[in-house]
Amino acid sequence: MTIFRVQVQRRFGDIDMLGHVNNVVYHDYLQEARVRIIREMMRQDDVDFSHIVARQEIDHLRTLDLRPAPITVEIWVSAIGGASYTVDYRVLDDDGQVAAKARSVMVFYNVELQAPTRIPDDVRAVLTGMLEPGERHG
Amino acid sequence: MTIFRVQVQRRFGDIDMLGHVNNVVYHDYLQEARVRIIREMMRQDDVDFSHIVARQEIDHLRTLDLRPAPITVEIWVSAIGGASYTVDYRVLDDDGQVAAKARSVMVFYNVELQAPTRIPDDVRAVLTGMLEPGERHG
Amino acid sequence: MTIFRVQVQRRFGDIDMLGHVNNVVYHDYLQEARVRIIREMMRQDDVDFSHIVARQEIDHLRTLDLRPAPITVEIWVSAIGGASYTVDYRVLDDDGQVAAKARSVMVFYNVELQAPTRIPDDVRAVLTGMLEPGERHG
Amino acid sequence: MTIFRVQVQRRFGDIDMLGHVNNVVYHDYLQEARVRIIREMMRQDDVDFSHIVARQEIDHLRTLDLRPAPITVEIWVSAIGGASYTVDYRVLDDDGQVAAKARSVMVFYNVELQAPTRIPDDVRAVLTGMLEPGERHG
Repeated sequence: MTIFRVQVQRRFGDIDMLGHVNNVVYHDYLQEARVRIIREMMRQDDVDFSHIVARQEIDHLRTLDLRPAPITVEIWVSAIGGASYTVDYRVLDDDGQVAAKARSVMVFYNVELQAPTRIPDDVRAVLTGMLEPGERHG
Repeated sequence: MTIFRVQVQRRFGDIDMLGHVNNVVYHDYLQEARVRIIREMMRQDDVDFSHIVARQEIDHLRTLDLRPAPITVEIWVSAIGGASYTVDYRVLDDDGQVAAKARSVMVFYNVELQAPTRIPDDVRAVLTGMLEPGERHG
Repeated sequence: MTIFRVQVQRRFGDIDMLGHVNNVVYHDYLQEARVRIIREMMRQDDVDFSHIVARQEIDHLRTLDLRPAPITVEIWVSAIGGASYTVDYRVLDDDGQVAAKARSVMVFYNVELQAPTRIPDDVRAVLTGMLEPGERHG
Repeated sequence: MTIFRVQVQRRFGDIDMLGHVNNVVYHDYLQEARVRIIREMMRQDDVDFSHIVARQEIDHLRTLDLRPAPITVEIWVSAIGGASYTVDYRVLDDDGQVAAKARSVMVFYNVELQAPTRIPDDVRAVLTGMLEPGERHG
């Protein structure tokens, strides 16, 4: 699959009283990476759809400290269903070690109907393209 | 087990541009509930230990909107290991419906050694007490 | 004027690596207090208006630490103009000492026109009522 | 004076339910810029000192929306006192227009004594250098 590498700036406020990036903030980093993928899927009429996090899981392997350099979040689409898709993540520390692994199950949601909806064909084509090997930065 | 019911105030800033409590913020609510349990386990020398989130998972079932009333997070200890324990959560919406279910695996960590450490007997006794049926508010 | 006393819960994530409530978070507390006043002014058709922070200033006098008890923010309307009003705040620490004093100039904004707009008479009446002496909690 | 130009990434969570960067988040952006200047002043023994925000004021002139590009915060030292210094900021929108102007009075603080302290000579030399004309990015 295509691995997107997203650079996320750490902020002073990300650090908790224990001196590390707080566990809650990792989910913010995951969201930043996910927005990058969702932007690829966007269409003119995207006001009608939103991408809802139905399930999220994370394993914390290492701590992250405050540093000027951005951290890297790797994200890729690992599965596509009828109305949902799965994204996997790796949050890398400053040495390129995996600080956290995570996964989200995303539901494609019709805002007007307030209900999950089948992924439209054109969006599915973009998602399917992301299952192909590749690499993108940004 | 003892179910702790923790009231968490929503903040205006918890709401994202889609008009609901952002998925990241749920993890903040879980943390608030968890702090309540950890406070029960605290000792004089607690500066030596910290409770690290090793794994966290959440299932989002309903959205939460901005309301003046606090939301309720139910939290309880569901398992105790050598150096870790597991907590389960239910985030309730304004009608008492389950908005999210979540689970954390917490590791008991020796700050000086920078390594997981066996849960001390007195803390284990408190944790074990939480496995007993009961209910607490605060 | 009517002083509103708003209780705001501190969160673990409000504390920065220096061990105190981060200066940025005070603005979150001010916002929580302000939402309380704005709710008083709300009308059926309030979707058409928003209350924009045009200017804000704060003096930090004492630090706030992590405690289970909520902190108190006192807020009151101190002046009313044509399209704007001024609110003053006191953030109190756990001993009732003033931790911060702040002031916001709020502009009444017509969302459709994307422009400041004269405060409607019924809203002005509510605001003017707040200039009268009194005290409210919530 | 030397104007530092700091690029700050916007995050999805910075946007509030009104669709703009929330006013509280501007203070986070200011803090990010300020950390950049403080890093210039850091010394080996900086664990003994911290830089406290004693006063902050901001004028909001334009809204900021969610965009992939970072926003620019310009920051410079505008005055130096005995135990304090003043920094001024301009937050620029995507067209280079000033979205906000801000100012902080920073107090140099002795952590052990829990009291303001005279700015040490070597730090003062760095600060004074920042009053000279120049421009820096990062």
